[in-house]
Amino acid sequence: MAADPTPLAELRRRLAEVTDLERTSMLLAWDQEVTMPPAGAEWHAQQRATIERLAHERFAADRVGELLAAAEPESALDEDLLRVTRRDFDKARRVPAELVEQLVHAGATGHEAWARARAASDFALFEPHLRRNVELRRRYVACFPEVERRYDALLDDHEPGMRTAQAQDVLERLRDGLVPLVDAAGPADDALVQGGPFPVEAQRRLVETVLRQVGADERRWRLDDAAHPFSATISPGDVRLTTRYAPDDLDALFCALHEFGHGLYEANVDPALARSPLGSGASSAVHESQSRLWENMVGRSAGFWRWCLPHLQAALPERFAGRTWQDVHRAVNVVRPTLIRVSADEVTYGLHVVLRFELELGLFEGDLAVADLPAAWAERMRAYLGLAVPDDAHGVLQDVHWGEGLFGYFPTYALGTILSGQLWAAVRAAMPDIEEQFARGEFGALAEWLAEHVHRHGRRLDPAQVVERAAGGPLDPGPYLEYVRAKLEAASARLIA
Amino acid sequence: MAADPTPLAELRRRLAEVTDLERTSMLLAWDQEVTMPPAGAEWHAQQRATIERLAHERFAADRVGELLAAAEPESALDEDLLRVTRRDFDKARRVPAELVEQLVHAGATGHEAWARARAASDFALFEPHLRRNVELRRRYVACFPEVERRYDALLDDHEPGMRTAQAQDVLERLRDGLVPLVDAAGPADDALVQGGPFPVEAQRRLVETVLRQVGADERRWRLDDAAHPFSATISPGDVRLTTRYAPDDLDALFCALHEFGHGLYEANVDPALARSPLGSGASSAVHESQSRLWENMVGRSAGFWRWCLPHLQAALPERFAGRTWQDVHRAVNVVRPTLIRVSADEVTYGLHVVLRFELELGLFEGDLAVADLPAAWAERMRAYLGLAVPDDAHGVLQDVHWGEGLFGYFPTYALGTILSGQLWAAVRAAMPDIEEQFARGEFGALAEWLAEHVHRHGRRLDPAQVVERAAGGPLDPGPYLEYVRAKLEAASARLIA
Repeated sequence: MAADPTPLAELRRRLAEVTDLERTSMLLAWDQEVTMPPAGAEWHAQQRATIERLAHERFAADRVGELLAAAEPESALDEDLLRVTRRDFDKARRVPAELVEQLVHAGATGHEAWARARAASDFALFEPHLRRNVELRRRYVACFPEVERRYDALLDDHEPGMRTAQAQDVLERLRDGLVPLVDAAGPADDALVQGGPFPVEAQRRLVETVLRQVGADERRWRLDDAAHPFSATISPGDVRLTTRYAPDDLDALFCALHEFGHGLYEANVDPALARSPLGSGASSAVHESQSRLWENMVGRSAGFWRWCLPHLQAALPERFAGRTWQDVHRAVNVVRPTLIRVSADEVTYGLHVVLRFELELGLFEGDLAVADLPAAWAERMRAYLGLAVPDDAHGVLQDVHWGEGLFGYFPTYALGTILSGQLWAAVRAAMPDIEEQFARGEFGALAEWLAEHVHRHGRRLDPAQVVERAAGGPLDPGPYLEYVRAKLEAASARLIA
Repeated sequence: MAADPTPLAELRRRLAEVTDLERTSMLLAWDQEVTMPPAGAEWHAQQRATIERLAHERFAADRVGELLAAAEPESALDEDLLRVTRRDFDKARRVPAELVEQLVHAGATGHEAWARARAASDFALFEPHLRRNVELRRRYVACFPEVERRYDALLDDHEPGMRTAQAQDVLERLRDGLVPLVDAAGPADDALVQGGPFPVEAQRRLVETVLRQVGADERRWRLDDAAHPFSATISPGDVRLTTRYAPDDLDALFCALHEFGHGLYEANVDPALARSPLGSGASSAVHESQSRLWENMVGRSAGFWRWCLPHLQAALPERFAGRTWQDVHRAVNVVRPTLIRVSADEVTYGLHVVLRFELELGLFEGDLAVADLPAAWAERMRAYLGLAVPDDAHGVLQDVHWGEGLFGYFPTYALGTILSGQLWAAVRAAMPDIEEQFARGEFGALAEWLAEHVHRHGRRLDPAQVVERAAGGPLDPGPYLEYVRAKLEAASARLIA
């Protein structure tokens, strides 16, 4: 193999190879959920572990450190590449390989234990595994002794640069704004979009129609079914969405729009950043702002339903013939506290997340014991949503994250929701007629605004810079709270009228 | 990472990793043909090149040579592993990396040029690329100066241990046996299975029924559509077949049975050989014997159609209601010379392959110039099949192999066909009632016989040993010629009666 002319060129080549391995791992993950025959699971796990180990080894190698020290940037892009890569490299080298292996193993074991415990609705079956995950994550945190607060080390993995103090501040303001809105919400009537029968094949055609209209053309995108919907961007030319159809609700449509938001972000990153650490989304929260914007600000808007109603009626005439877009718009916007996060509406969702964030803080910085999680969960569920938790399956066992040893991720759901409110306010300021555009089936101007202000930068900008530039200020729950308040007021006005 | 206790253990770990990479590359190839959105092609090629380069680098590494020198076998299995791995390693190290890169690049360029030339039916567009491929392959051959004949080096890549002299001998005997049979074949009447309309969805259900019956259960197998059908075994628990449906013929069924034969071979390799160089089929010819056995000896047998007829009638009632299994059996066994190899029947197929083999010999050992290929092709097509070649697309440009720089592969199609005849004779000797079993929809005893005598050994036995043990002697075209002769006689008897 010919020698590279400069350290920078050799580094770029090495990073392209690592990115190829990471994207291949993503393809394997997609394949497992969508196409793999079940008997392939054991071998699949070994193949994926090999790909991931090679990606890690080749990125965290001594040679990469030498190249990072010797590389001389020739452009602003090079400077960004070196800055982000140095940060990633430092994090990758801090954690001993032995601890990484223990984390991976405990995560896999914990996932299985969680699934069994949830099926039995018995936290006791999960507790020892969760204790192990927390203990290992504490050792992980100890690899970063320079952090101000221990939780900072967890949060930084998903939200680079974000500090716990800032997250805590905006999430408290979100919580304090949302709790009174839950109490003020009127009676929920969403019978129109519940219960079915909504034949899956008809829903599938509707979802395909909507995705095509918002911009998921078949040259670059595909849509499949998955038990737990997700998106996977294999390359700038290959974006894969999944959704889940149920015959008794229309969640598949909102789920598809949510994943489209994630996919569009990745698809629109500047192609010049592909095959490098800069070529993906800036953070989990910025990603989530995109998915929630398409799911909610678009998919639950009046403008969207003015366009979509005839398509809904064509797909499901028995239920929707003779109904107005206002009927559908009202039904997909009801507020009703639920025990389950993934079924939550726009008002209550944030409170589910704040609850988890507060419990994680208690585990890693306070004196909350793993054994006390179910009680702490029930207490907050009553305080924030007024609901009694009947069993562990509908409480502390509902999410997979902790079973896999994933801490510091939950808050990004709410931070993303907050950001979606700020971005939506900026979009409406820039394009006051945006809902009129939706009503004509035009979604291209929104996609372009997002590409220009958020997507194209990839990881060249830090998350805080993305927020600052696109939203005109730091993270602020105000616009989101205004957005949901306005919806609730419109709903009460309709009730009174 | 903990040190491995012995060189053998470290070698096994390294080989498992290389196998994981190779199977991942196969998954990427499958994905490209079956699921990838078209705009992903460019990035896919880079990802796959990275995976393949890593597989090659980690296998052909100095460390593997040291381990092979130091490893001490502890069992017969270890001895086989070391023998086969040493042979693979020696071949991998013989070819300079620079030449490998040139071969890969010329193969990709040649493939594109071939596709354009075929679309234009103009050999002149392809000729310079083919010259380049031949030139590079000659340099490849020169890396193996110890071979008796130059073509040996090409053949050995696909048929380890096979010599050109032996291949030439059995293929000449095949040719000399087949040519008179072409002349003796009666008029071909396959109108029953041609022309359609055979709705694709109905065919799909039929193919799924047949595959399930022969043993492709959904836990391990999947079936998809592909423009150029192939099979891909991702792991012992994940076997993927593809076929191609046309509304005017039933080729999809035979194609699926062909790919099932390949898949069943890989699926039945002893799981103890998985994640090692021993864990796949022994050679291209042995593989092809399996695919042709299921496609022809099973799929075109009287016993099969006695079982399958009601399923065919249920799927395609308009055409097949009231017809007998004898009608179908006769129609799927007609002999009719065709210009195109992949459409050839059991009698003429071997002659298409012999033609290509003889031209390859002329290119690499004789004085055949690339420019003279179209004329040489036409001459043999007239001599063996009595057909005039109207244009390059229906002649020298019909196959992809030479465009990709693949030489030495074609003969394995006919060698596999020959072996399928020998195996079928052995199966009938062991189970005289085999077609009665088929007629009852029972295919398990055949699958078990093949697993025991061929599949389970993987690459532990050399191809010649597989042939010797399973067929009771060396490669011999006699049984195959007997098999087709008997079919032709039965057909004439029916014509006379």
